[in-house]
Amino acid sequence: MTKSGFRIEKDTFGELNVPIDVYWGAQTQRSLQNFDIGGPSERMPPALIKGMAILKKAAAKINMEYGLDASVGEAIIKATDEVIAGKLDAHFPLVVWQTGSGTQSHMNVNEVLSNRAIEILGGTLGSKTPVHPNDHVNMSQSSNDSFPTAMHIAAVLEIRERLLPALDTLKDAIKAKSDEFDNIIKIGRTHLQDATPLTLGQEFSGYVQQLTYGIQRIQNTLPRLSRLAQGGTAVGTGLNARPGFDVKVAEVVSELTGYPFETAPNKFEALACNDAIVEAHGALNTVAVSLMKIANDIRLLGSGPRCGLGELSLPENEPGSSIMPGKVNPTQCEAMTMVCCQVMGNNTTISIAGSNGHFELNVFKPVMIKNLLQSIRLLSDASRSFTNNCVVGIVANRQKIKAIMNESLMLVTALNPHIGYDKAAQCAKKAHKEGTTLLEAALSLNVLTKEQFEAWVKPEEMLAPR
Amino acid sequence: MTKSGFRIEKDTFGELNVPIDVYWGAQTQRSLQNFDIGGPSERMPPALIKGMAILKKAAAKINMEYGLDASVGEAIIKATDEVIAGKLDAHFPLVVWQTGSGTQSHMNVNEVLSNRAIEILGGTLGSKTPVHPNDHVNMSQSSNDSFPTAMHIAAVLEIRERLLPALDTLKDAIKAKSDEFDNIIKIGRTHLQDATPLTLGQEFSGYVQQLTYGIQRIQNTLPRLSRLAQGGTAVGTGLNARPGFDVKVAEVVSELTGYPFETAPNKFEALACNDAIVEAHGALNTVAVSLMKIANDIRLLGSGPRCGLGELSLPENEPGSSIMPGKVNPTQCEAMTMVCCQVMGNNTTISIAGSNGHFELNVFKPVMIKNLLQSIRLLSDASRSFTNNCVVGIVANRQKIKAIMNESLMLVTALNPHIGYDKAAQCAKKAHKEGTTLLEAALSLNVLTKEQFEAWVKPEEMLAPR
Amino acid sequence: MTKSGFRIEKDTFGELNVPIDVYWGAQTQRSLQNFDIGGPSERMPPALIKGMAILKKAAAKINMEYGLDASVGEAIIKATDEVIAGKLDAHFPLVVWQTGSGTQSHMNVNEVLSNRAIEILGGTLGSKTPVHPNDHVNMSQSSNDSFPTAMHIAAVLEIRERLLPALDTLKDAIKAKSDEFDNIIKIGRTHLQDATPLTLGQEFSGYVQQLTYGIQRIQNTLPRLSRLAQGGTAVGTGLNARPGFDVKVAEVVSELTGYPFETAPNKFEALACNDAIVEAHGALNTVAVSLMKIANDIRLLGSGPRCGLGELSLPENEPGSSIMPGKVNPTQCEAMTMVCCQVMGNNTTISIAGSNGHFELNVFKPVMIKNLLQSIRLLSDASRSFTNNCVVGIVANRQKIKAIMNESLMLVTALNPHIGYDKAAQCAKKAHKEGTTLLEAALSLNVLTKEQFEAWVKPEEMLAPR
Amino acid sequence: MTKSGFRIEKDTFGELNVPIDVYWGAQTQRSLQNFDIGGPSERMPPALIKGMAILKKAAAKINMEYGLDASVGEAIIKATDEVIAGKLDAHFPLVVWQTGSGTQSHMNVNEVLSNRAIEILGGTLGSKTPVHPNDHVNMSQSSNDSFPTAMHIAAVLEIRERLLPALDTLKDAIKAKSDEFDNIIKIGRTHLQDATPLTLGQEFSGYVQQLTYGIQRIQNTLPRLSRLAQGGTAVGTGLNARPGFDVKVAEVVSELTGYPFETAPNKFEALACNDAIVEAHGALNTVAVSLMKIANDIRLLGSGPRCGLGELSLPENEPGSSIMPGKVNPTQCEAMTMVCCQVMGNNTTISIAGSNGHFELNVFKPVMIKNLLQSIRLLSDASRSFTNNCVVGIVANRQKIKAIMNESLMLVTALNPHIGYDKAAQCAKKAHKEGTTLLEAALSLNVLTKEQFEAWVKPEEMLAPR
Repeated sequence: MTKSGFRIEKDTFGELNVPIDVYWGAQTQRSLQNFDIGGPSERMPPALIKGMAILKKAAAKINMEYGLDASVGEAIIKATDEVIAGKLDAHFPLVVWQTGSGTQSHMNVNEVLSNRAIEILGGTLGSKTPVHPNDHVNMSQSSNDSFPTAMHIAAVLEIRERLLPALDTLKDAIKAKSDEFDNIIKIGRTHLQDATPLTLGQEFSGYVQQLTYGIQRIQNTLPRLSRLAQGGTAVGTGLNARPGFDVKVAEVVSELTGYPFETAPNKFEALACNDAIVEAHGALNTVAVSLMKIANDIRLLGSGPRCGLGELSLPENEPGSSIMPGKVNPTQCEAMTMVCCQVMGNNTTISIAGSNGHFELNVFKPVMIKNLLQSIRLLSDASRSFTNNCVVGIVANRQKIKAIMNESLMLVTALNPHIGYDKAAQCAKKAHKEGTTLLEAALSLNVLTKEQFEAWVKPEEMLAPR
Repeated sequence: MTKSGFRIEKDTFGELNVPIDVYWGAQTQRSLQNFDIGGPSERMPPALIKGMAILKKAAAKINMEYGLDASVGEAIIKATDEVIAGKLDAHFPLVVWQTGSGTQSHMNVNEVLSNRAIEILGGTLGSKTPVHPNDHVNMSQSSNDSFPTAMHIAAVLEIRERLLPALDTLKDAIKAKSDEFDNIIKIGRTHLQDATPLTLGQEFSGYVQQLTYGIQRIQNTLPRLSRLAQGGTAVGTGLNARPGFDVKVAEVVSELTGYPFETAPNKFEALACNDAIVEAHGALNTVAVSLMKIANDIRLLGSGPRCGLGELSLPENEPGSSIMPGKVNPTQCEAMTMVCCQVMGNNTTISIAGSNGHFELNVFKPVMIKNLLQSIRLLSDASRSFTNNCVVGIVANRQKIKAIMNESLMLVTALNPHIGYDKAAQCAKKAHKEGTTLLEAALSLNVLTKEQFEAWVKPEEMLAPR
Repeated sequence: MTKSGFRIEKDTFGELNVPIDVYWGAQTQRSLQNFDIGGPSERMPPALIKGMAILKKAAAKINMEYGLDASVGEAIIKATDEVIAGKLDAHFPLVVWQTGSGTQSHMNVNEVLSNRAIEILGGTLGSKTPVHPNDHVNMSQSSNDSFPTAMHIAAVLEIRERLLPALDTLKDAIKAKSDEFDNIIKIGRTHLQDATPLTLGQEFSGYVQQLTYGIQRIQNTLPRLSRLAQGGTAVGTGLNARPGFDVKVAEVVSELTGYPFETAPNKFEALACNDAIVEAHGALNTVAVSLMKIANDIRLLGSGPRCGLGELSLPENEPGSSIMPGKVNPTQCEAMTMVCCQVMGNNTTISIAGSNGHFELNVFKPVMIKNLLQSIRLLSDASRSFTNNCVVGIVANRQKIKAIMNESLMLVTALNPHIGYDKAAQCAKKAHKEGTTLLEAALSLNVLTKEQFEAWVKPEEMLAPR
Repeated sequence: MTKSGFRIEKDTFGELNVPIDVYWGAQTQRSLQNFDIGGPSERMPPALIKGMAILKKAAAKINMEYGLDASVGEAIIKATDEVIAGKLDAHFPLVVWQTGSGTQSHMNVNEVLSNRAIEILGGTLGSKTPVHPNDHVNMSQSSNDSFPTAMHIAAVLEIRERLLPALDTLKDAIKAKSDEFDNIIKIGRTHLQDATPLTLGQEFSGYVQQLTYGIQRIQNTLPRLSRLAQGGTAVGTGLNARPGFDVKVAEVVSELTGYPFETAPNKFEALACNDAIVEAHGALNTVAVSLMKIANDIRLLGSGPRCGLGELSLPENEPGSSIMPGKVNPTQCEAMTMVCCQVMGNNTTISIAGSNGHFELNVFKPVMIKNLLQSIRLLSDASRSFTNNCVVGIVANRQKIKAIMNESLMLVTALNPHIGYDKAAQCAKKAHKEGTTLLEAALSLNVLTKEQFEAWVKPEEMLAPR
């Protein structure tokens, strides 16, 4: 007997009341009740649900070739399209903190697709006819191969469609600044101490190189991330799957997404571990390390306006303080560096989870994919935000940069070939001690003339090997 | 000019359109636009918003003593009560990935309280009269002291009201099992290899001790977590705050919450670093380490039913497999161990964030509190779920436990005092090599009689020093 | 038959050639051969060997009461004294990467003590008479309780005798600087941007508070670290140990070391997990987070000399560059921050290791104690080095500090009560835009007189609540 | 004036006494005194010193083309050969915890090479003639480009010559076992619970695949690790280096080592960050994750001998217990998994260090290379040890494996196509509840005959898709 507003759904453990306006079924409902952990913000990421729907669409297509009733198959496909489009997001209420195989979210997908397909075909929700969540939607599949397959599809899509474009955009924006700043000579700093000069464009070119490598690093992980576990079924042997099902799934997923996927060469590996997730996140971790450095440099160069380095002015996007008028803070750098901390921590989470698998199945899959997808999303969004709200608006304070540089004692390095290291050192130390300019110190030591100094100490000639 | 459905709000950067049905103002709206990072699941945790509202309530009370208009003060307090009760959660849309001081979420609170108080007093939203977000709600406060104060209040409340009770409940449930299993003698295992016996109750008593210590570890961090930064204002000096404001805030927050808070003895430390958050999370990390061990043991002891250790039967809560009938999995252990991975990774995030502060303010506050509150929530909820859906229903398979133990060759240790280590070793090795029982081996080696064996090899006498 | 230069030692697995000039025996030799991992720098830390020797000394004393032959007991005690004094360090060649219970290093200690005691008594090395490594040196003990006992003794000693004094010294040195810098008013910086002023002494007082808390955090872990597993023997039951042996060991270790130790209240916990090590390292992790912040601040404040913040001059201890004369780098800060990175990573190692125990024994003990002892040692030594070679010699550049501060626009905050926030903001923005002083901007806006400005803008009155 | 047993060495900071029998000079001595941190086990790794010596050899060859006196150049080269051969290891006493650019260890190398070359040429140690550490040994070089160059050379050599061969050997050994175990059908386990069968060979093939991928992952990092910073000098501009020096260094290093090196395409990136180190360690981290899983599986499968899973027998290499005769432990698995913990923690250390660079130079270089080289070394040695002392000697307990499998209720899955899922489930549940065999349960339920059961339930037909 249902309560009002509920219908009855059942699984092999019995019957359950399910809200009348949702597509999920008994196993989803059971998980909701048994895993009340963390609240809505801990739900399985939509990108994973989408990956699962793409897989289910591919499976339905193939299963129709293998004899799945065409009307059933088509209804399933229609339902998957709605899930892919995000129209049914509200029907995936399960949190990450559930069974470690992701079976419950997998069944959530099967149940929603089955009920929605039933509805499309005019049937009764919960009746499992004419579209059964297991027999039809899940035909030839098992959670143990489907869930890691969906993990890989989701990760590849998010990386290709979200992260790589965002990093490209950021790289291009910094490259444009590097070009714009090409002729601005500034003091170099090593150990945070004054060093020999370089151009601001050169400094930014280092960031461009970091991002260029970062993009390569991520791309390098795609081959293994694009190998799908599907076809391994319960333990990797493929029991109850048809021969060739694995290859076909990879083919159809490739068609549906437009990206190259292959079937995993060894299904035992593909279920028992999730090393490809660990590897991919390792690349994100390296990118986070790079971005932390870049964002830190930019806010340090923009520190001030009067009492810091003050070489850059960052865009003023919002009031910085309620008691200090005119205060503007490098908030985009702050958001970015906080994201980097999260990504570095997620790397620890994923590594521990990845190392704890046993025998034929790693059962830390949900926490792994949650962390990977979060890192992808945060790095993507933060990169775009940082690009649009910070990088493109960075202005070089040319006068300040020049003034600082000209005060630097490290320009003395240019005198080495002319007056020797020892006399050059004398000049530098005298100037440092007495707070004078290098020229003043040199003149008072009688080691050169003003004309010589001006001829020899040319920062613009200190920018490359000669 | 507003668009339809919007009203105009403004801050020192100018005017902005804000949806007509929300209480937030210009600074919140600006942050929403400038920090489009991660989506709704990345919002500032409600527990922090609540912490902030408690602080604002305390501040309003104190400010009324210092001259804040009573009707304004009372309206603010009413508004804070609604926020504390969670009624206005939808009005706090900002994500964690914003300015590192949390200023934008702080202003979100000020703006919502101001507008709601204005509404209560019959004024016009966005007018800032008669309740100004800065002049009245934020009186004597600065983001730089308010945000870390709210962090501490939120953390203390979540620990005291959520985590400690959940751990206590889990500890008690395991203690009950330890008592229940007191007389079940089983084989011990070290290095995963058979060792000398102990009782199942003794084994579980180790878990109880781990949790007892874990609770102490968390409690030990409360003194420093209960010290509040409020009163330091912008850089720790307390500029523009009244003398004594800091002490009063701690007093009123103590009254409002029922827990002891104090003002921080050094406000420079309280703003410039968030070491107390790092410390508190270190305790959670240790608890995660403990829980990982406990949950792992339980699922290993429950492995089987036929081909594993099979000493325990865990509750069957849901179907485990769509192709393998009757399969039941230790899913609560899986949720718990995934949570532990997350907490251990969050510890890395928080440590990195905590180490990256500069000068008068650590600007990784939002990521730190997000991770701390997530860890608290996940450990709490997972502990409750694990208790209710697993621990209380654990059944010891007494027959299996006894059968396994009696096969163990390590009972030979009991023969040492009677026939010596060397002959005992001979028996064990012979039995191991030939696959016989110890008794058979011992008899065939003529080192004792059956009666002697039965008199000497008594697992029940191997459970304590003698 | 021995090879020349070797003698024969044997264990239950058979005979082995051991170099004639070493005290170790067969089990040590076997481990050397089976675990050729990492080379000499990966040896078990001497502090742990010392901890083990202290335990063996205590055990010998107690065993003499229980009937161990006095001459044997005395010889063992003499041998332990030599190990404690570090005289036999060369006889402990085993690396950390061995059995996870530390049994092999434990037997290394038993073998060395036995052979040295035999030598003292005029016997033949390797003969196991009159002092047997197991029967006499290891009497009533097992690796499974002895190794974690030695871990705790070593950790407590290193913390009490090395780390806490070093942190105290550093704290005192920074406190002295805080006092010395008490009247130096400087600009505050939040978000790396100019903020309201504070004194350099106040800034340093924040570091003092961090260290004060850090010392407390470490001390808080000592109660659990001072509980000893000894008496649990193989699986925690205490089989084959005498009743009361556990309590006596704790008493005698307390006497020998002068620090309070207790027997662990639950021996199952004390063997099966090493949570106390995780907890203690969590405190070190927090201290590393603090020290990272302090060292970073100091090198940033000391950045320059001409092109950085330049508020501090750090001691010049060594040449900084072979091509840039006069370059001096904040090398002590660099050593310190590198140490902090190591400690934060060690925290991950220890957490993972601690979470991976199974049943009656955690078998990641060697890696845990190695990392804990390394972190203690590095933090201790780096703190001393940082104190002596950096902190005590820090000089404040008063003139530069004053000049920078006077340029800051954030002093405008002092005008708020006099001319209002809006006009104050106008002054600050005009000055910022036009590159003038606040006074110039204010005068040209006609909002005050020069006399008023000088009366109102007094940094020395912005240092506390009023 | 020297003390007896000392000679005088000097640098720009003055004179110092140096022990008469060492080759190092003043800057090394100064570092020894200023950085007394951690003791001998914390010394800069020999592999890095070797990398530095290879670089110095290449530089000397090139500098001779550019006019370095041939006799001086040849003497330097002879000295570098001795360092490369490890003959002068005792002359590199500096610890990792020094300046973050590695300048002090770099000068240690320059000083030792200079003094040894002077000795070869018959000169006086410490005289700097005819071979000057800076002018000759360090010609055209700076620490800021030399140290990261040496880091990359060392890492590439250690990976190519130590790690990859060790992993190959391990992979081959597991592959041989996979082949050997090809026809052993066993129960599969997912969630630690009984699942459908697979062969032991299939199970091991998953490990082979993990290692195959692991090797690829490491190889993928070599391109960026093989790019050398040399030629960037102080800040990346190459000031004071000759044009083309960078390309030549890469060429000569390639010749000397036999591996392909290139000059870094952007020297600013190559100095300012060490992302390639982070990336490379990320690959090691993934390998550690894989090895943790493999070693854990093997010790779990080998658990017992009587009371565990007992499917495998691992080689008995040493006595496992002093009180339990015949106890043998999976010690090689323990050493391996401890190493994996260390590597995962080192990944955190390296990530933090890599993220903390500022401007033109990351000054966490020593800690980064120390951790990378330690991880390489430990993984290499542990893999060899694990291979030789464990994997090659693993024996499958065929009888036990078969017995366990035949008891499994999950073979019921084979009945699905014949009697339907529901009846199959009935059989499984009845057998589970009553503790009978599947056959017994099926017969008593009258759902099939004994002949049918034997025809349908054939584990050997459950190993692949059909």
